[in-house]
Amino acid sequence: MFLRNYWYIAAMPDEVGRELLSRWILNEPILLYRNEAGAPVALRDICPHRNLPLSEGVLLGDTIRCGYHGLEFGPDGKCTQIPAQPNIPPRFRVRSYPVVEKWRWVWIWMGDPDLADESRIPDFHWNDDPDWTPTGGHFYIRCDYGLLVDNLLDLSHETFVHALTIGNAAVAETPVRTESGDDEVRVLRQINNHPAPPLYVTLKGFTGEIDRTQNITWTPPTNIVIESRSFPSGSNDPDMVLEYRVLNGITPATPGATHHFWATPRNFSPEEEVTSAFHKGSVRAFSEDVEVLEKQQAMIDYQGGTSNWFDITADQGGLLARRKVKQLLEAEQAPNA
Amino acid sequence: MFLRNYWYIAAMPDEVGRELLSRWILNEPILLYRNEAGAPVALRDICPHRNLPLSEGVLLGDTIRCGYHGLEFGPDGKCTQIPAQPNIPPRFRVRSYPVVEKWRWVWIWMGDPDLADESRIPDFHWNDDPDWTPTGGHFYIRCDYGLLVDNLLDLSHETFVHALTIGNAAVAETPVRTESGDDEVRVLRQINNHPAPPLYVTLKGFTGEIDRTQNITWTPPTNIVIESRSFPSGSNDPDMVLEYRVLNGITPATPGATHHFWATPRNFSPEEEVTSAFHKGSVRAFSEDVEVLEKQQAMIDYQGGTSNWFDITADQGGLLARRKVKQLLEAEQAPNA
Amino acid sequence: MFLRNYWYIAAMPDEVGRELLSRWILNEPILLYRNEAGAPVALRDICPHRNLPLSEGVLLGDTIRCGYHGLEFGPDGKCTQIPAQPNIPPRFRVRSYPVVEKWRWVWIWMGDPDLADESRIPDFHWNDDPDWTPTGGHFYIRCDYGLLVDNLLDLSHETFVHALTIGNAAVAETPVRTESGDDEVRVLRQINNHPAPPLYVTLKGFTGEIDRTQNITWTPPTNIVIESRSFPSGSNDPDMVLEYRVLNGITPATPGATHHFWATPRNFSPEEEVTSAFHKGSVRAFSEDVEVLEKQQAMIDYQGGTSNWFDITADQGGLLARRKVKQLLEAEQAPNA
Repeated sequence: MFLRNYWYIAAMPDEVGRELLSRWILNEPILLYRNEAGAPVALRDICPHRNLPLSEGVLLGDTIRCGYHGLEFGPDGKCTQIPAQPNIPPRFRVRSYPVVEKWRWVWIWMGDPDLADESRIPDFHWNDDPDWTPTGGHFYIRCDYGLLVDNLLDLSHETFVHALTIGNAAVAETPVRTESGDDEVRVLRQINNHPAPPLYVTLKGFTGEIDRTQNITWTPPTNIVIESRSFPSGSNDPDMVLEYRVLNGITPATPGATHHFWATPRNFSPEEEVTSAFHKGSVRAFSEDVEVLEKQQAMIDYQGGTSNWFDITADQGGLLARRKVKQLLEAEQAPNA
Repeated sequence: MFLRNYWYIAAMPDEVGRELLSRWILNEPILLYRNEAGAPVALRDICPHRNLPLSEGVLLGDTIRCGYHGLEFGPDGKCTQIPAQPNIPPRFRVRSYPVVEKWRWVWIWMGDPDLADESRIPDFHWNDDPDWTPTGGHFYIRCDYGLLVDNLLDLSHETFVHALTIGNAAVAETPVRTESGDDEVRVLRQINNHPAPPLYVTLKGFTGEIDRTQNITWTPPTNIVIESRSFPSGSNDPDMVLEYRVLNGITPATPGATHHFWATPRNFSPEEEVTSAFHKGSVRAFSEDVEVLEKQQAMIDYQGGTSNWFDITADQGGLLARRKVKQLLEAEQAPNA
Repeated sequence: MFLRNYWYIAAMPDEVGRELLSRWILNEPILLYRNEAGAPVALRDICPHRNLPLSEGVLLGDTIRCGYHGLEFGPDGKCTQIPAQPNIPPRFRVRSYPVVEKWRWVWIWMGDPDLADESRIPDFHWNDDPDWTPTGGHFYIRCDYGLLVDNLLDLSHETFVHALTIGNAAVAETPVRTESGDDEVRVLRQINNHPAPPLYVTLKGFTGEIDRTQNITWTPPTNIVIESRSFPSGSNDPDMVLEYRVLNGITPATPGATHHFWATPRNFSPEEEVTSAFHKGSVRAFSEDVEVLEKQQAMIDYQGGTSNWFDITADQGGLLARRKVKQLLEAEQAPNA
């Protein structure tokens, strides 16, 4: 159902601490906490004994103690204690998952642990770079993750969904170029000599027409980087450039729900009030998407799937990504995989 | 599941305007609005592109624009605009449905449009007749539509469900006569020399015994006209006659939910305060039915259907109507139908 | 699914009166009331005519009248009245169930009425004995009844779930002895020279170490008596003994929900304030169990059952009870049973 041998964002760093965090990821309940040294730990959030979520228990040092019968498990998942029972069978363990903190996110590897290679974490460095000022957040959306991927690979919806922040007529009117590499899909849009959308006016004080670049790069399974660059048409003043990235870590929660971890690092005006305006504008726009995506999902559920969709030219990016995911899923689930 | 080649009430006229109305009818989501000329329009409320409900979009003249990617559809369902795409394939359309405004209701034809013949709209003229004073409303009931048909074809329940408005012991005690024609079922009850029920005392000031006629006519699929006529026993004074119709347009919403469009036009005392008292009494009685029907449905769901029902004499009308619907459904779904 | 030829607690005596009580028992809706002589009556809570719950009707003497069409049924389930229909077919009846009031509970027999033998009601006499002071209550828990049986047969969880009332480290640390008879399972624990748990300090003022006996007896299908006896280690003073029973009548409501009828009769300090403290402590502890059981059930539902449970030594009692229930179910459902 889901690609497993990939890194997914599990949480924002502040969410993981000495309090126990329980979160569904790829349709599995995952317990997240930090050990005493501060490193994140991820365990399947089900006691293998009688199935109480381990997140209902207590953390003793690096060890989690089940809140029902007191069985204890280390960060590697091995059972270390059974009350009134000296012998602990070696098979008594709970699954543990590789986790890595990088780019100011906590990443989890849900597949074969032997394949967990940190170098495969996607390049989201803008979120942890002194030259860029980040802001970001997390949405829980009641839709299949594919709908959010589609959404971010076709930004023409900005015109209709986000008219009060980042959209205006120019976006939908300007056709895109779609490119497909071995392991990526790129959707490129260049809008020249058009008015700035409302949020850009707020952030940068644009008064006249602007040139705007939107380059979207998808890599499997669900990583999307949007490169956005705008400046007054005909201007050469580097101070007037509005440039940011939209980093999207899309983590399937369950078949019908999705985590959207997002950040919008920018390389201009690091002031806190600009961060605040950008954060507010981003939350507003993503909230509009949540409303659309959940209503869209309800109709897809009613129709029993997406096989009757009518495709248009603007869908090319999303369709290519879906095709690649399908191929990768088949490869991952093949007998010799 | 549902008879399709029939007119069903979709809405009361005031509900349909330039604001978009979304409503489930025969297990399909339907968008209703009026074009600029004021005529009602009905479209399937799902954008064929990516399935957002069209009712989340905006109305531009006679055209609906999807709120996600801006595709536009005319009142006939044809796609008239795809942003940044000059070519519109002819198959890009959303289903449109014949709609007619008649008897102060908006009627929809959910079946083969070629068979949509206005003359087949049932005769509910009392709701739009200068000699009759109407009042009415709409209930959404979480039950199969068949339970509401049963309910209205056996008014003996008035005694037990509506004792504070239209029911008293006389109703259940008086047997009915049931007649069946080619395309109708009639249930007739004549109650003589009995006290008036509470609402009749309120409306007409009856002090002594009355003679009361209840003649129910069902026509497929779900139209029910109740002719009600009462007067003081032995009186000839035409001013003392209390006569009204209960018009019922029953529209299946989903397999487990039903729209009940009702009206109670009367031919006496057209004053507004009488209308108000009659409206209030009707809403009270129908609300009591809603409570019964939803609790009945919950037990039918638990039992997995109605095959274990014990039938009594008073059920004859409902059973005949169910049998006719079954035959008509088989005919409508037959290969050559 | 459930053992049927057994007595189950249906209600506490105060719950059953002239008001109609509706309650799910072994996945059937049951109507409970008292006849005019004060004896409890149990009927299937579904009118066989059109399936409205009979509990929506009214009680007329010993007879229930359906709130929809006025059919009447006696306490034996026989239909005694159909409005406007003189002939009542003998098959018109609603199922009635044997009920007996005993040990200050109302017991119901959900199986073959010919086998309903009062002598098979389990011995819960402590709840109705002048030498014992009772208190008790009722919980509705969204879990399979088996989880509550497991819970009560392995009290090592007191240490982790009930540390503020009846649990401390000594309970989980002390191994149990498990015995199995033909028709019972016994789990015995003797804790010597250990501190008293918080509730015992409150109830009895223990200051030093105590000796504590916990003897649990399960009999099918779901009856559990816990014999609890504590006194200061080394003391012979009978006034210092804290002794009570925990009586548990566990009645499956539906496959996913369970009634827990409990009582904690004691043979010391009959004063009302001690009763109040004991009641409060018991409710607190059982409420902690409810929270655990419902979260446990959610994960079992997610996992699709309990076949992957890891068993530990302390589970022996619960596993033996489950095995006996399985055998008894097979016997009860065998063709010649």
